[in-house]
Amino acid sequence: MTNARVVVWRDGAATVVAPDEPVVTGFDLGLGRGDGAFESVLVVAGTTPHLDAHLDRLRRSASIMALTHPGDDAVRAVVAAGVADWPADVEGACRVLLTRGLGDGTPPTLLALLAPVPEETLRQREEGIAVVGLSLGVPADVRATAPWLLGGAKTLSYAVNMAALRHAHAVGADDVVLTSVEGRLLEGPTSTVVWAAGGRLHTPPMETGILAGTTQARLFERAEAAGWPTAVTAGSMADLQAADAVWLLSGIRGAATVTRLDGVSRGDAGLSRRVGELLAR
Amino acid sequence: MTNARVVVWRDGAATVVAPDEPVVTGFDLGLGRGDGAFESVLVVAGTTPHLDAHLDRLRRSASIMALTHPGDDAVRAVVAAGVADWPADVEGACRVLLTRGLGDGTPPTLLALLAPVPEETLRQREEGIAVVGLSLGVPADVRATAPWLLGGAKTLSYAVNMAALRHAHAVGADDVVLTSVEGRLLEGPTSTVVWAAGGRLHTPPMETGILAGTTQARLFERAEAAGWPTAVTAGSMADLQAADAVWLLSGIRGAATVTRLDGVSRGDAGLSRRVGELLAR
Repeated sequence: MTNARVVVWRDGAATVVAPDEPVVTGFDLGLGRGDGAFESVLVVAGTTPHLDAHLDRLRRSASIMALTHPGDDAVRAVVAAGVADWPADVEGACRVLLTRGLGDGTPPTLLALLAPVPEETLRQREEGIAVVGLSLGVPADVRATAPWLLGGAKTLSYAVNMAALRHAHAVGADDVVLTSVEGRLLEGPTSTVVWAAGGRLHTPPMETGILAGTTQARLFERAEAAGWPTAVTAGSMADLQAADAVWLLSGIRGAATVTRLDGVSRGDAGLSRRVGELLAR
Repeated sequence: MTNARVVVWRDGAATVVAPDEPVVTGFDLGLGRGDGAFESVLVVAGTTPHLDAHLDRLRRSASIMALTHPGDDAVRAVVAAGVADWPADVEGACRVLLTRGLGDGTPPTLLALLAPVPEETLRQREEGIAVVGLSLGVPADVRATAPWLLGGAKTLSYAVNMAALRHAHAVGADDVVLTSVEGRLLEGPTSTVVWAAGGRLHTPPMETGILAGTTQARLFERAEAAGWPTAVTAGSMADLQAADAVWLLSGIRGAATVTRLDGVSRGDAGLSRRVGELLAR
């Protein structure tokens, strides 16, 4: 990977190493148990303009999972070390990984992984995405009262998220909207669902156990300020089919316009430009 | 960890390294996405008597997850390298990890981690365990028809399993029986549920998406041969409360007798000895 690099937090300092240098031990619980949290931070013009929102969410994930958090300053330090000398004309993805280390009160493992945003991601941002709905196999209300299911935490245990994306690719789609067993909208495997209908922007309720989307929060705040009302709405795939526009929002790809949903082509009523402008401010 | 060691599969050969030597790169998908599979193999008297059952299940997990499998010989090689010189008088746990590597057709990452069986595990094997029932938040039938949910695969994405165990410890228990949203028995976070009732041994159906227990399979085969009938039964926590005996079975701990279930003390009708004898053959 061109320019890719890894930053390791060791002995209170951030150390940059080559991407092919081993940095994690075999017994690390992040590896063996997916027991950790992560964030994906956009790098533009050599800066990380939305880092604070990711710091907030990483703290929330660590709290939900009872992970030892090394402090925002440590996270800022590994990100800064990775972004230093990053070429201003290359968009980057900075993934911050925080694991339980060896457990039993041992220090957590903190890494930052820097790589250019993949070409395919840039293409999807420009051209839109074909999406299929898939069940996550959970009732919409179950995670709100069962904290051990880790609703709201962005954990390293993404095997099902990755399998859902592979399933989408196998049926000729780019991405997925996960739904509850009752057919309620949840989220994408790596994104937040947003749709426009009735003059409003909508997103599903966090009480379903979905992640708090950092890009969705920024869009909704700016839309409200610009006079575009927003709502938290318990929608369905039928609501998406009937919507004026549908997007999957994430930190790296931004707002990807859904151009096909379960095999049905769909437009965006010209609203994607407005969403893009709000996010670009 | 005394005697702990790590074996890495590199360039077609097994290399033993110290447990604190980094062996996995930051971009490995096993770390960043919990995208891989594992097995925990018991080491007794310097041997791995049940390795074949774990090789079978690792192949099945890899198939479900579309992971590149390096072949049974590679897995045997890393296990053998780890077990070589292992002290005959120390029971060991050999965890085999297989990850998607860097993805996109890159070679998988294959490791074996050897460590002594923890004292606490040996104590629970001897003295039994206090168990609480917790919902896994899925209907019992959903994973059978949604392959992207990875039912039956022993993935590295165990954050929820670990959180369920932490929840049990927080309420003074040792372990967990996970149930479906309808209250049907599934499995433990790292074990298979078995109970004795009506002169039979019972275990829940695999169609619920639970793992095929290697120790449960061995017990049931030997019990049948010894004239103790077995059954696959869709039970509930009430069935466990009413049972003659309940065990959580796993490769390292063996058959741990449940001595307290959701706060209610319970006996084993003297059956644990018979189970132990069948497994020890």
